[in-house]
Amino acid sequence: MALLGDLQWRHATKAYDPTKKVSKENIDKIVEAARLAPTSSGLQPFKVFVIESQAIKEKLVPGALNPDVMRDCSHVLVFAAWDKYTPERIDNVYEKTTTERGLPAGRFNAYTDKLKQMYGAQTAEQHFEHTARQTYIALGLALAQAAELRIESTPAEGFSNELVDEVLDLHAQGLKSVTLLYLGYGDKEKDWLAPMKKVRAAKEDFVVEI
Amino acid sequence: MALLGDLQWRHATKAYDPTKKVSKENIDKIVEAARLAPTSSGLQPFKVFVIESQAIKEKLVPGALNPDVMRDCSHVLVFAAWDKYTPERIDNVYEKTTTERGLPAGRFNAYTDKLKQMYGAQTAEQHFEHTARQTYIALGLALAQAAELRIESTPAEGFSNELVDEVLDLHAQGLKSVTLLYLGYGDKEKDWLAPMKKVRAAKEDFVVEI
Repeated sequence: MALLGDLQWRHATKAYDPTKKVSKENIDKIVEAARLAPTSSGLQPFKVFVIESQAIKEKLVPGALNPDVMRDCSHVLVFAAWDKYTPERIDNVYEKTTTERGLPAGRFNAYTDKLKQMYGAQTAEQHFEHTARQTYIALGLALAQAAELRIESTPAEGFSNELVDEVLDLHAQGLKSVTLLYLGYGDKEKDWLAPMKKVRAAKEDFVVEI
Repeated sequence: MALLGDLQWRHATKAYDPTKKVSKENIDKIVEAARLAPTSSGLQPFKVFVIESQAIKEKLVPGALNPDVMRDCSHVLVFAAWDKYTPERIDNVYEKTTTERGLPAGRFNAYTDKLKQMYGAQTAEQHFEHTARQTYIALGLALAQAAELRIESTPAEGFSNELVDEVLDLHAQGLKSVTLLYLGYGDKEKDWLAPMKKVRAAKEDFVVEI
């Protein structure tokens, strides 16, 4: 029941103590959970930016729904998804997979041909909707890993994508920001949500057993 | 490092042993991880259908990219997201939250008014893209919980949404299927992926530290 306990422990922290920093070792574990996340066809169509620089955080403050959280947290993870699928991106992933598994070159060609055909028939907007979805799996696992380490976090969609994309120069990297995960140690006195009961849909309203 | 070990252990299982069933107790834990998943504004805009019935699974076999997995797995979870946000759905969630926290009625009215305004300016298609994304957080946490219990799983987008929606009568419930999570115990001899190395993007290609 380790994960369930961790999920009960966590909440979306609303205020951070700016004097407390998460260690590099723990940040690495949180990012590793995101890196191990499963993704559609194993393409991992995103990168994670780890922002520790206070100067960069200050640049993002004007675009944050909760500016104090951006300013006071220890680190911000930015989940930035591929703006589109391309044959090159697909080949890059599968060439690495084939090599690392010691398989004959072209082992996955039939599969990647199908992927290229499928994505070739879609628009870049459709691609991004799909790549963006994949980041949420990694976001969830990263915050679970943070909770295991008793590091507080706040998953966030409330920010200016335009500003984040510009500050991190994402367009030039073929990426677009999707979600943030603020990390740090909470300020219990200022965090209005900290003392409140965690509320979720009742099991009977959430689950249908067939 | 419990979660990281669980994520290293798991893989997308490609063949299940049809004679081995996951216990009710363990299914409940996996669903509980999904229920505890954070979601945008805490709205939990989805339900989880737990299909144990072989007859219902057989109805879904023709729409599955991997029919044998559908047929042989122990249980299938279907993550089905709200087809749209409505003022009633938003109010239902926040009335429950207000009551359970013992707060004065209307405590979150300013916030829910903002949500209603924001979603009121969007189309149902935009709503569903957003509700669908939230299911991926829960999908990730559910498969992490399965891994902790050493139950194998396969997250899947490869299925006929139309067939699943029809068989589960989702339209009438204001829901649309998004993802599946097959659960069970693998058939090691038939699962071609089981002996292969887990491959992920190298850390230097995945993480940017700033």
